[in-house]
Amino acid sequence: MSTALHLARPDDLDRLIPLVEAFHSEEGILQDDETRRAALMPLLDGSPLGAIYLIGPTRAPVGYVVITFGWSVEFGGMDAFVDEIFIRPKVRGRGMGGDALTALSGALGDAGVRAFHLEVDRTKDRTRRLYQRAGFEPRERYMLMTKRL
Amino acid sequence: MSTALHLARPDDLDRLIPLVEAFHSEEGILQDDETRRAALMPLLDGSPLGAIYLIGPTRAPVGYVVITFGWSVEFGGMDAFVDEIFIRPKVRGRGMGGDALTALSGALGDAGVRAFHLEVDRTKDRTRRLYQRAGFEPRERYMLMTKRL
Repeated sequence: MSTALHLARPDDLDRLIPLVEAFHSEEGILQDDETRRAALMPLLDGSPLGAIYLIGPTRAPVGYVVITFGWSVEFGGMDAFVDEIFIRPKVRGRGMGGDALTALSGALGDAGVRAFHLEVDRTKDRTRRLYQRAGFEPRERYMLMTKRL
Repeated sequence: MSTALHLARPDDLDRLIPLVEAFHSEEGILQDDETRRAALMPLLDGSPLGAIYLIGPTRAPVGYVVITFGWSVEFGGMDAFVDEIFIRPKVRGRGMGGDALTALSGALGDAGVRAFHLEVDRTKDRTRRLYQRAGFEPRERYMLMTKRL
């Protein structure tokens, strides 16, 4: 099975916003519309720091994935991080999220990206298994720490 | 106390290499000299994806920190990640690592970076406390997963 995936551009913003709102609402992330648009636009505009892909039909996407790019000395080059991934609840469970991650892994690898990371909620076994099936290995021994600036 | 910190440039490569070799040797990271130089040079050359700072006297640094830049929709802008941090064993325990992270937090925040992340080995309590003192909060509930591309 293959899931359609396309790079989101500035004129996709109005199709993207309701999906991001739905994800933020599920995750309890509070963000006003202006802040949300300002957080998305640089990535639609070609920032070297990341990219957004719409999942599903171009005119009526059912999900999105935000990828951020970084650099790893250990991996010897660029790496990428899943910042956000969301599939509309109605079409969840059909493998579209996993397909999107697998397709992105191929495209990123072809573009010279060395490693692809994501962060998972330890309590969500189903999500974790989905990521494992897509080839992501848990780094049990490590933990992220964050300082808000 | 303040610890000297300066942005590493291409002509710092030969001062940087022995420090990176020492860190990789401690961490069990195997990397040949050519690969290591290729992994460091883009960051010394001004890549938008990251930067390297030397810790200690300019001519005789005792450590380094590699910062990688990314983007967070949730935080509404740029974020930064500590890719590697190292202080020579002989001068460890004097607070230089924590000082460097605190100074960098200030500089990154002033430059508009919204959040600063790092990954810690769960089994290393001392390191974790050092990061907590520098203002990093553990994200106990989450775990990183990585796919090598």
